[in-house]
Amino acid sequence: MTHILIGVIGPGETASEAEMQTAHALGEAIAQAGWGLLTGGRAAGVMAAASQGAQAANGLVVGILPDADVTQAAAVDIAIVTGMGQGRNVINILSSRVVIACGLGPGTLSEMALALKLGKPLIVLQPSGCLLETLSDLSSTPLVPVATIAEAIAATRRYLAE
Amino acid sequence: MTHILIGVIGPGETASEAEMQTAHALGEAIAQAGWGLLTGGRAAGVMAAASQGAQAANGLVVGILPDADVTQAAAVDIAIVTGMGQGRNVINILSSRVVIACGLGPGTLSEMALALKLGKPLIVLQPSGCLLETLSDLSSTPLVPVATIAEAIAATRRYLAE
Amino acid sequence: MTHILIGVIGPGETASEAEMQTAHALGEAIAQAGWGLLTGGRAAGVMAAASQGAQAANGLVVGILPDADVTQAAAVDIAIVTGMGQGRNVINILSSRVVIACGLGPGTLSEMALALKLGKPLIVLQPSGCLLETLSDLSSTPLVPVATIAEAIAATRRYLAE
Amino acid sequence: MTHILIGVIGPGETASEAEMQTAHALGEAIAQAGWGLLTGGRAAGVMAAASQGAQAANGLVVGILPDADVTQAAAVDIAIVTGMGQGRNVINILSSRVVIACGLGPGTLSEMALALKLGKPLIVLQPSGCLLETLSDLSSTPLVPVATIAEAIAATRRYLAE
Repeated sequence: MTHILIGVIGPGETASEAEMQTAHALGEAIAQAGWGLLTGGRAAGVMAAASQGAQAANGLVVGILPDADVTQAAAVDIAIVTGMGQGRNVINILSSRVVIACGLGPGTLSEMALALKLGKPLIVLQPSGCLLETLSDLSSTPLVPVATIAEAIAATRRYLAE
Repeated sequence: MTHILIGVIGPGETASEAEMQTAHALGEAIAQAGWGLLTGGRAAGVMAAASQGAQAANGLVVGILPDADVTQAAAVDIAIVTGMGQGRNVINILSSRVVIACGLGPGTLSEMALALKLGKPLIVLQPSGCLLETLSDLSSTPLVPVATIAEAIAATRRYLAE
Repeated sequence: MTHILIGVIGPGETASEAEMQTAHALGEAIAQAGWGLLTGGRAAGVMAAASQGAQAANGLVVGILPDADVTQAAAVDIAIVTGMGQGRNVINILSSRVVIACGLGPGTLSEMALALKLGKPLIVLQPSGCLLETLSDLSSTPLVPVATIAEAIAATRRYLAE
Repeated sequence: MTHILIGVIGPGETASEAEMQTAHALGEAIAQAGWGLLTGGRAAGVMAAASQGAQAANGLVVGILPDADVTQAAAVDIAIVTGMGQGRNVINILSSRVVIACGLGPGTLSEMALALKLGKPLIVLQPSGCLLETLSDLSSTPLVPVATIAEAIAATRRYLAE
């Protein structure tokens, strides 16, 4: 059975404490829904927190690493080692059935934009008004701002049911 | 002598007539300054128009193609064929000394974000207020909004002189 | 817990019936040893047969797909969608702790060579004399020709214990 | 006018003195024929020597760099910076109209194999009997062993005329 992978994207070292708490709870909720979690795989910020949350709920975690080895990896069940730096961002998006953004860094923004480009459903937790306006202008594909994790999970469920 | 490559990024099929005219004039100005032009290489929108402008001014044009062959290529002097789809966007940024954005599509936004992530000077022609606010929050590297091609060329010259 | 991934490489559509039988048994043996199986993910040849063998033994199968969608995917538990064509071969190698070759096609040879280049242990089932001579000349890293699946598993076990 | 790019592949740091002399003369001959030279771009071995030869004959040299910056680059006219490590090998092949191998390392072998996989004409200078046998078994595309640079240029000319 092929696991449904839900991508969680967000800042690394610059993530706030609040973003990391949200990411932890989001990872947990994804695992509890029976989906696999996919992140950029580094042991920092939203990637690390979401991974820990999913593993705490016995979920499966896939990390797509930018480096050529696993020394910088978060706690993941499956480590995909690309050696392609930010070139791996497109793999994060293509391999996710739905992408959920939690926080914002430049790498996160590149992945949001790729989700729009590649037609992946993109759910954004608590976006600023300007971010939402910028993305909406570009989007011919589903883009859903949400206020809570429960809403993010519900929106994900809707896309998967389509 | 290694050519200085200036990246021009912008929408493909969805570019407006005005964006394409600006891109043509920008390509021309880059060539007249003695720099090489680098684009995403496809025969559409800003990529095609900038390439034509640069070639009209006897400039050198490098195209980094997403496809695995050259059938969709713009008029370029050097066709780099990646077969990596949007994975090639990171190559566009890494290979450019300075990146200039002309118009906005989802692929463009992914490249702008990568420029910020990878520390490349990013010059943006006539950004909307919201785009500028979104990018500025993320940027620890040079980000310069400009109103005209002349300003874009002047800003490029300043970065190259650093 | 991070799964230990063992890469199995070999021809796709051009695989012989004997190679596919060997790949099936090899996938089974990898799963029985408690390791995850990693392949190039396509529904053809050695990739498909090894995946079926591992799944028949309740193993975990990771497929690293060259395409930008999953329509050509073998039966895998985790589908990594790269959209990078043969550019994904390096990911196959970097993500595997040990690589086992079963049969030979041009893609397989490129992966064998990358294993040598990147210092990954490479086990080759029943190589021709000329292939072995060619690879040995290039190898500063472990290269082990084996005659049987049991020998391949034993050699893998030795590398993992190092 | 799009330059015809001829790829020259061969070992880096492990290249012999004889291989580097051959690569230098080959780069010169490619430039004299009016073609652009494409290499893996690093300042080592066959890549560096071929680049110097082509530049000595006023040729255009394109280097496709594995690193994320140009600090390790050979003398090239156009530096394409990929940050993708050996993932860039597929770009070397896809961007070349014809590929000529001069010497053999593991990276070279991966590129030869990709040339066969991707249907690019592959010319091999003075291959060992075993290498030639290994490659020939895999090849449904043109594979030409040659003894001299003159023969390599003549074979290249034939492919370009097709």
